[in-house]
Amino acid sequence: MVYVGVDVGGMSIKIGLVTKEGKILKSKAFPTEQEKGFKSMFARTADMIKDLLADNGFSLIDLGGIGIGIPGTVDSKLGLIVSAVNIGCKNQDLIKEMSQYFNVPIAVGNDANVAALGEQRFGAGKGHENVVMVTLGTGIGGGIIIDGKLYEGNGGAGGEVGHQIIEIDGEQCNCGRRGCWERYASATGLINQTKYAMAENSNSLMHKIANENGGVDGRTAFLAKDAGDEAGKAVVDKYLHYLAEGLLNLGYILHPEIFIIGGGISHEGKNVMEPLRQKLNDDFDRSGMLPYIEVVQASLGNNAGIIGAAALVM
Amino acid sequence: MVYVGVDVGGMSIKIGLVTKEGKILKSKAFPTEQEKGFKSMFARTADMIKDLLADNGFSLIDLGGIGIGIPGTVDSKLGLIVSAVNIGCKNQDLIKEMSQYFNVPIAVGNDANVAALGEQRFGAGKGHENVVMVTLGTGIGGGIIIDGKLYEGNGGAGGEVGHQIIEIDGEQCNCGRRGCWERYASATGLINQTKYAMAENSNSLMHKIANENGGVDGRTAFLAKDAGDEAGKAVVDKYLHYLAEGLLNLGYILHPEIFIIGGGISHEGKNVMEPLRQKLNDDFDRSGMLPYIEVVQASLGNNAGIIGAAALVM
Repeated sequence: MVYVGVDVGGMSIKIGLVTKEGKILKSKAFPTEQEKGFKSMFARTADMIKDLLADNGFSLIDLGGIGIGIPGTVDSKLGLIVSAVNIGCKNQDLIKEMSQYFNVPIAVGNDANVAALGEQRFGAGKGHENVVMVTLGTGIGGGIIIDGKLYEGNGGAGGEVGHQIIEIDGEQCNCGRRGCWERYASATGLINQTKYAMAENSNSLMHKIANENGGVDGRTAFLAKDAGDEAGKAVVDKYLHYLAEGLLNLGYILHPEIFIIGGGISHEGKNVMEPLRQKLNDDFDRSGMLPYIEVVQASLGNNAGIIGAAALVM
Repeated sequence: MVYVGVDVGGMSIKIGLVTKEGKILKSKAFPTEQEKGFKSMFARTADMIKDLLADNGFSLIDLGGIGIGIPGTVDSKLGLIVSAVNIGCKNQDLIKEMSQYFNVPIAVGNDANVAALGEQRFGAGKGHENVVMVTLGTGIGGGIIIDGKLYEGNGGAGGEVGHQIIEIDGEQCNCGRRGCWERYASATGLINQTKYAMAENSNSLMHKIANENGGVDGRTAFLAKDAGDEAGKAVVDKYLHYLAEGLLNLGYILHPEIFIIGGGISHEGKNVMEPLRQKLNDDFDRSGMLPYIEVVQASLGNNAGIIGAAALVM
């Protein structure tokens, strides 16, 4: 038995054959071509899945199910893409669409939720039943696992942890609220804070580092701090404060066993994960809200989408 | 079959006989006398339960179970009071203690969680599986029901929705964090904001209203606003903004079907509940994070503690 995981993105769709142990046997990617519309997009996906199975010696009888991760709001109970701007979909019944091509269990979920499920079942969260995953990218994606199951909220509208506000009436967010966590603690937030600090500190090493690396990115302030730059250190310290406070909010509300941190910034390793653990532990020590919540780096990387999607139908 | 609900408070312990339909047949209260210690407190509780059963014609064979709500952190899986400052308990095995006196199912939970369970099963949340209850009192208590079950977080340390921060580095909270929601949106928060506004507006009607009512309380600003006072209106508007933003955070993270609002301020009815609904709906309209989340007033009042505790063992 093999499962198919589909990770739909704005630019490309990735599909993979996944074992029940969460190993990807084979995967491939093809352009999303969302401009051709919903039906075309998933007709091609169906063809690609059939090819991938055949090319690897599997027939449809070996297929245990197909799980699909979508970048947008998904009502997984109804199998509906409620709204996914990046692929131009709104109120589309994806399970019905895919059932034309396959007579196996089909499930659909939001991509961040699906990645969290992948990490909980087969990655950094293995062995834990209550897990919150936070992905620090352009925004902050979130996935909540409760009692070993994905918690998506009514209509799939939960898990939007990046849009909790941490500064009332703060920076304007694209979502319409002001002061959302992702304005401060996403990679974008870090880059913005780095740029502000550079504008105010013309002598900071950050200018040289940015020049050498073709521009300001999420590593600029960290590299400057490592080289002893005070302004760089101030940016990092403030960023970690924002990051920790939002995570602590999730700790006070949900108190999962473990936080899994994904996205590029999590690769800063000891520069991010260690101080983050320290900040959280200090808070729980002081407040007595024990046990501690483990903080670990995501381990499946870009494969979390495919593996997690497949896990939806296992 | 009858169930016993026990609502333990710092001053008094309330016990009640509860039917499986969530009706209180009979209840009574007695002083907590926490200074006599844990064992004495619950030996007396056991005696009172036996008396209440006997006085109402029930024998121990009619007793389906005993549920106990505790004002503090409780590990309900282990049956442990982790820490309950108001009744002087720390790391006490309450189920073991009560099992000396009764050979029936015994369960224990945090009082705010237990009240939420009562409201979800038998009160304002009836018929809903995913419910968040928020009680606006001295602080802000919270209870989260997911898939019809109490969600308490690891070690019972979740559900502390009042200690999510909404203003980073904001007002100092007793818990040690800065900017916690309860600093702004609890009854205490409202009273503090009323006092600040009065100090700055010596001509405000709030002074007269407070004098007539024996001091500033949670109604002062609302009464002033109703009488056309600008400063009173400003306090109410700002308070509702704080309240709505914290609720919206819980909406983005959990998106339950319904929010239940308890505590004295919820009795302001149309002055609070209507604008709150409007603010939440406006946000969900704008963000597309639908369906709407209902916002209703708690309906069990002070009985929620007894009924919810009994529901723990149903």
